[in-house]
Amino acid sequence: MESVHPLTDVFRYVDDHKNKFVETLSQAVSIKSISADPELRNEVNKMMQWAQSKLKALGADVELCDIGQQTLNEKKVQLPPVLIGTLGNDKSKTTICLYGHLDVQPADISDGWASEPFVLTERNGKLYGRGSSDDKGPVLGWLHAIEAFQNTGIDLPVNLKFVFEGMEESGSIGLDELLIQKKETFLKDVDYVCISDSYWLGTDKPCLTYGLRGMSSFFVEVEGSSKDLHSGMYGGTVYEAMSDLLYILNQLVDVKGKILIPGIDEGVEPLSEKEKELYEKIEFDVDAYISEIGASKSQKETKEELLMSNWRYPSLSVHGIEGAFSGPGFKTVIPRKVTGKFSIRLVPNQIPSRISEIVKNYVQSVWEKRQSPNKFKIYTVNEGGNPWKTDPFNDHFLAAHEATKTVYNVEPDYTRCGGSIPVTLTLQEVTGKSVMLLPMGAGDDSAHSQNEKIDVRNYIEGTKLMAAYLYEVSKIKH
Amino acid sequence: MESVHPLTDVFRYVDDHKNKFVETLSQAVSIKSISADPELRNEVNKMMQWAQSKLKALGADVELCDIGQQTLNEKKVQLPPVLIGTLGNDKSKTTICLYGHLDVQPADISDGWASEPFVLTERNGKLYGRGSSDDKGPVLGWLHAIEAFQNTGIDLPVNLKFVFEGMEESGSIGLDELLIQKKETFLKDVDYVCISDSYWLGTDKPCLTYGLRGMSSFFVEVEGSSKDLHSGMYGGTVYEAMSDLLYILNQLVDVKGKILIPGIDEGVEPLSEKEKELYEKIEFDVDAYISEIGASKSQKETKEELLMSNWRYPSLSVHGIEGAFSGPGFKTVIPRKVTGKFSIRLVPNQIPSRISEIVKNYVQSVWEKRQSPNKFKIYTVNEGGNPWKTDPFNDHFLAAHEATKTVYNVEPDYTRCGGSIPVTLTLQEVTGKSVMLLPMGAGDDSAHSQNEKIDVRNYIEGTKLMAAYLYEVSKIKH
Repeated sequence: MESVHPLTDVFRYVDDHKNKFVETLSQAVSIKSISADPELRNEVNKMMQWAQSKLKALGADVELCDIGQQTLNEKKVQLPPVLIGTLGNDKSKTTICLYGHLDVQPADISDGWASEPFVLTERNGKLYGRGSSDDKGPVLGWLHAIEAFQNTGIDLPVNLKFVFEGMEESGSIGLDELLIQKKETFLKDVDYVCISDSYWLGTDKPCLTYGLRGMSSFFVEVEGSSKDLHSGMYGGTVYEAMSDLLYILNQLVDVKGKILIPGIDEGVEPLSEKEKELYEKIEFDVDAYISEIGASKSQKETKEELLMSNWRYPSLSVHGIEGAFSGPGFKTVIPRKVTGKFSIRLVPNQIPSRISEIVKNYVQSVWEKRQSPNKFKIYTVNEGGNPWKTDPFNDHFLAAHEATKTVYNVEPDYTRCGGSIPVTLTLQEVTGKSVMLLPMGAGDDSAHSQNEKIDVRNYIEGTKLMAAYLYEVSKIKH
Repeated sequence: MESVHPLTDVFRYVDDHKNKFVETLSQAVSIKSISADPELRNEVNKMMQWAQSKLKALGADVELCDIGQQTLNEKKVQLPPVLIGTLGNDKSKTTICLYGHLDVQPADISDGWASEPFVLTERNGKLYGRGSSDDKGPVLGWLHAIEAFQNTGIDLPVNLKFVFEGMEESGSIGLDELLIQKKETFLKDVDYVCISDSYWLGTDKPCLTYGLRGMSSFFVEVEGSSKDLHSGMYGGTVYEAMSDLLYILNQLVDVKGKILIPGIDEGVEPLSEKEKELYEKIEFDVDAYISEIGASKSQKETKEELLMSNWRYPSLSVHGIEGAFSGPGFKTVIPRKVTGKFSIRLVPNQIPSRISEIVKNYVQSVWEKRQSPNKFKIYTVNEGGNPWKTDPFNDHFLAAHEATKTVYNVEPDYTRCGGSIPVTLTLQEVTGKSVMLLPMGAGDDSAHSQNEKIDVRNYIEGTKLMAAYLYEVSKIKH
């Protein structure tokens, strides 16, 4: 006889309350908590208060932390508070810190949504609405998992610390300072950190995420004259800034994506056999990936090569040029000053300051070869973001692995992400503990695009996964 | 004893009526005839009517010709009429066609004007105001020259045909069609054409202009995907359109302005000894030219080389890129589709359609070397504009040369212009006669910029020059 899982009742509760949980998500989605729009700051505040009352109802001690103001278009605007909460204080239990965010990306039906973005709408087993997957659905997943423990009379096996913010889509302004400030108090006893704000690689198979890339961004400025010039009146007589800039930007990366900067691989971790095996096991369809974005062909030949290029090797993208003519139609201008913008995604164990130095030296040397009398500058506006990687074979990941098997009946893929979630590093540094990214949504959820959705399956099974994760982590021996 | 010039009284009349002529210019400048702004179309119409009444007062037969509508932002907008007029019909006299325009570039004091742009303001012998030099001042110059003949009892020695339009700053829409239509009627008996809508090379010495460049404009489009991509999520996996475009745009021109397209010099006239001498005589200060635009250094070593590069050889400028990130700050986007825009200024005797073919073939061959699977297209949106050049040693130029010596006591420079004035070619083709560009304003008049002005000297002596020009042309033997 098959043994009964200790969370069977919890799982059944989640299944039985599917409609209620969808209704709660519908309430959350209806609040237009767009952090990018200062006119909607009250909606973000309302969202934080709504979540505060939900946490309170579960018995948590909660606090809305004032994190001050931001300056937007030269005006001071109050930041939405960060919601922190504590549930349970049993010294014998493991303490898990959960991070999520309640603000969303902008959305309007005129952008090309099939239904109102702030009215959760179910079609074919998918729940469409802004924030459904990023990140209101996952935040509610944690709350519903706790509710399921409580309402089935099963003791919540862990203590919880909640950190829910309202500025993630706008750079998490003020969050790092608060977390650092709470290091010795609120965050002192945390044993593990879990962040559910990323996605499966595909649409079928769950995954655990153990790495993120960092980033250094660069501005290359060339100035040829003190005013824009007419290309008829001046063409043929002046050193054109645009021509110089194109010369530089063309020497950064080749057609296959190889970065042309000598030394750019400095710090890149060698690929171990064990890591290589993780890539081989991953379920990933290169053709589907390429066809989904409407590209002609993958730049990399194999699944492994493609994923490694996005996750464990640096990549360079030129984003655009400021100061040149960029409108529709035609304008016969010789732009006076043009600024090219590019970034390099960094990987473990690259150091942003060191990479910036290598890049600046290289671009400077390219410029010197140009022999142009124009004014030239390469600069960065911040220190750059560190890459992040953790050990995917530790107890924490093993626990999540077990939880995934329990709920989805499959071994999770071990993935990284080509982008950045800066709070991951902050939480790791402040707590000194293992951080995991445990996605709820699928790879096709269109987090920042039109028609964002979360599959009912991911929302409901993901809630069970969260319950199972809390349970499995509680069993880790210290 | 020195002989008295037959126009002495005419010149004295102009001097004596300086204040009145400035006042008339002030009235013209006060009308906001900005052709680019459809909301101000009534102001352009008012300006055309104002000029019509002035021409009528001189005894001309006038007509405001309806040239139909234009489509602006998907709305039909009525075009301002073209004012045509005839003064004199004496078969024994030479007939001169005078072209000018009465619309102006946009202007607002907030753009950085030292005084209201539509209030003519005198400071240090300069008359500041939008249209003072481009082109209301010169148009009034012709009218005042005629008035001076009439009011001093000196017979106007020529018949005149006027063509004054109100759309020059917005592409002269509808003008060509009208001129072609009037070829066998209104324009039938024209012997010479004179256009006063250009500038001296510098600020001291008058010039006669005998050449203009043409232009071909190109769009290079590279498409990598059906949507913009996040450089974290996709960087390292896709063929980036921006990278491909930079590769192409970098292979058009070198740092010294040399166009890298084989065959691009096709059709360029060889430099004759006689033409070379014209360049040697020209008064032109390379250092002042470079310092006026705030550049570091001239791209060409000598005065002759610089002027020839701008006037008699093709030049290529890259104006910008549509579709890439162009705002301030930073955006980590991989743009889905980018369109580079560049143009080539054409010179006698280059044929735009032939040059377009050469350019397209070259860019296509560069693209093929790139070996990128992205979608690519190079195209033009119009046929391009022809260059124009006339014989600066013919009777017509000799007459203007004499007129200049009479008024300014100096031999004029013979210049070309690096830009285009398309009506020049149209008038030459429709009349089959010699066209001259006879500038009134100085090289520092800032025609399309803030603080446009005309020097009182240029306005008054320029009016005398126009009178002397009419007189000298009347003496040409047929």
